[in-house]
Amino acid sequence: MNTRAINFSAGPSTLPVSVLEEARDELVDYQGTGMSLIEMSHRGPHYSAVHAEATALARDIFAAPDEFEVIFLQGGATLQFSMVPMNLLDVGVRGGYVVSGSWAKKAIADARLYGDAYTAWDGAADGFVRMPRAEEIEIQPDTRYLHVTSNETIGGIQMFEWPDLGVPLVADMSSDYMSRPIPWDRFDLIYGGAQKNLGPSGVTIVFVRKSVLETTNRDLGAYLRYDIHAGGDSLYNTPPVFSIWMVGKVLRWVAERGGLAAMEAAARHKSGILYEAMSASGGFYRSPVDPGSRSLMNVVFRLPTEELEAEFIAASSAAGLVGLKGHRSVGGCRASLYNAMKVDGVESLAGLMAQFQADHT
Amino acid sequence: MNTRAINFSAGPSTLPVSVLEEARDELVDYQGTGMSLIEMSHRGPHYSAVHAEATALARDIFAAPDEFEVIFLQGGATLQFSMVPMNLLDVGVRGGYVVSGSWAKKAIADARLYGDAYTAWDGAADGFVRMPRAEEIEIQPDTRYLHVTSNETIGGIQMFEWPDLGVPLVADMSSDYMSRPIPWDRFDLIYGGAQKNLGPSGVTIVFVRKSVLETTNRDLGAYLRYDIHAGGDSLYNTPPVFSIWMVGKVLRWVAERGGLAAMEAAARHKSGILYEAMSASGGFYRSPVDPGSRSLMNVVFRLPTEELEAEFIAASSAAGLVGLKGHRSVGGCRASLYNAMKVDGVESLAGLMAQFQADHT
Repeated sequence: MNTRAINFSAGPSTLPVSVLEEARDELVDYQGTGMSLIEMSHRGPHYSAVHAEATALARDIFAAPDEFEVIFLQGGATLQFSMVPMNLLDVGVRGGYVVSGSWAKKAIADARLYGDAYTAWDGAADGFVRMPRAEEIEIQPDTRYLHVTSNETIGGIQMFEWPDLGVPLVADMSSDYMSRPIPWDRFDLIYGGAQKNLGPSGVTIVFVRKSVLETTNRDLGAYLRYDIHAGGDSLYNTPPVFSIWMVGKVLRWVAERGGLAAMEAAARHKSGILYEAMSASGGFYRSPVDPGSRSLMNVVFRLPTEELEAEFIAASSAAGLVGLKGHRSVGGCRASLYNAMKVDGVESLAGLMAQFQADHT
Repeated sequence: MNTRAINFSAGPSTLPVSVLEEARDELVDYQGTGMSLIEMSHRGPHYSAVHAEATALARDIFAAPDEFEVIFLQGGATLQFSMVPMNLLDVGVRGGYVVSGSWAKKAIADARLYGDAYTAWDGAADGFVRMPRAEEIEIQPDTRYLHVTSNETIGGIQMFEWPDLGVPLVADMSSDYMSRPIPWDRFDLIYGGAQKNLGPSGVTIVFVRKSVLETTNRDLGAYLRYDIHAGGDSLYNTPPVFSIWMVGKVLRWVAERGGLAAMEAAARHKSGILYEAMSASGGFYRSPVDPGSRSLMNVVFRLPTEELEAEFIAASSAAGLVGLKGHRSVGGCRASLYNAMKVDGVESLAGLMAQFQADHT
């Protein structure tokens, strides 16, 4: 095996190398069939087994109760920004949105086109550096759901306490999916693109409460209806075979490593290394995020100047630590620490941070 | 290399083995980066190059003029059944639909939810065994577009003459995409899932006339707007990286083999072998399709009894010829002859048909 880069990309992002190697070995000839899995009918026995296993593993690892359906879709979280209000926002009810950053802003903008959506809390005044406390969120009458973005990939803030305000939650968990257990009784629907903790891009996983499906809007094109996908076991139309196949492999990898509790402990440990490194730097590296909202997945940090940031990113890249540039909309640095990021990769980064500081002060 | 199955699946379907082998060799470590392409940022240099090449090759091979945008989307043709009318059917105009089989029925059903869609021709009375002649299609006033399904994968019928009725065409070409040149001046929009001639599932390619984008509906969620995807070079949100990467490889494979004219000639030759074999069988194998509409991509045929059909499919499978079962909604047999199907594979099938007939009469 060649040397692996230490990949801090925010998504698409690092995957377990064992998953990639397994996929490589199976890609041309799947189980001696003389065909690739990606060449086979999605209703044939081989893909059906892969699809069923990925569905079952998702349910098991997330500990989703029987009251929830697991659905594989396409179009990313971006299509869910439309599908959630289309399906759930009937006349006479409204959707509350916690506007916590770039992704939440996109979610509410789309929701307004399909129903009565309102801002239940807005972090703009603070510059999106924290999640709200429950008591800051204003729920209006007839609220069908409160939409939250559990982790803002760009801002590097994460929601650690799920607001309990007497309304069901809908969550975009794209960038902290499968990094911590989910208190299912609080949710009606959870969605997220796979390309962070779950696999490659090209598939979105939706968990939706079965009772919700009884009242979703039916006057929608077939692809846009949750009830149709759920009723067809995510095989109403041709699924994104490769992406689901890979998600199944990643799910197995997570199961073998202790599941969600182990992923959460690892995320705390890995992000702790970097937040400690910042503390120890005496202000050379600083987090723009409020201490109580600092993400365990996307650790954003600034250096004294933009010039030093550019130099730091170049030095990291030369040392084989890649993907550390912050999102173009906010600048700075960002280290994404998804499940497949190893502890020693994070320690290498912390070491490089200390060395770079020593070299530049 | 192991023995390859001869794969007649209707989609997902056979791919060039050289494409699969190249993908295998590149999957774990892309160009010495120590990362897989599917782990990299979709805005980084490596994926950007792959994305740009796939876009440029699609434009070149299809000979799409500058007046058209090429867009990569998710959700299959099924999502396009909604997106086309959502974007194009404004108040005061209507969409005509040629209802030629299973796929066209789904397209018009979704269109009716988003605008004034009407049946311009219906093949149901004949059992969907042919495409209409132009003079049979009834265009109503204020028709914005005439929607056609250029090839019905299930029924095995194909449209060889594009109706010239003074209205722009919109075509679902999923199952004969990239098998013949396209007279672009007749079209406003063409779409199709990749999982037949273009690559694995998980990506849809849309060609849309730029002038059309000036008047599409803007009151749609971001993912559902053609103008947003076109304006962002299909990178408005995270694209399905693996599928687009593979499509690029398949496009290169087609370019190296002479492009669309060569693919069309090969399709005529390969399907001709099977239609000849049917003729030569004296009625043992028969096509349910009108001679003028017989598909070059999906050759459907019946045997004297359903028992013989089941036996034939089992015998084929034992001989390494797979995917010959007709769609569950219509029964019978179906041989899909996409671009990656080799002539000798089709000759093997014709040989097996003759042998099976000899053994059973």
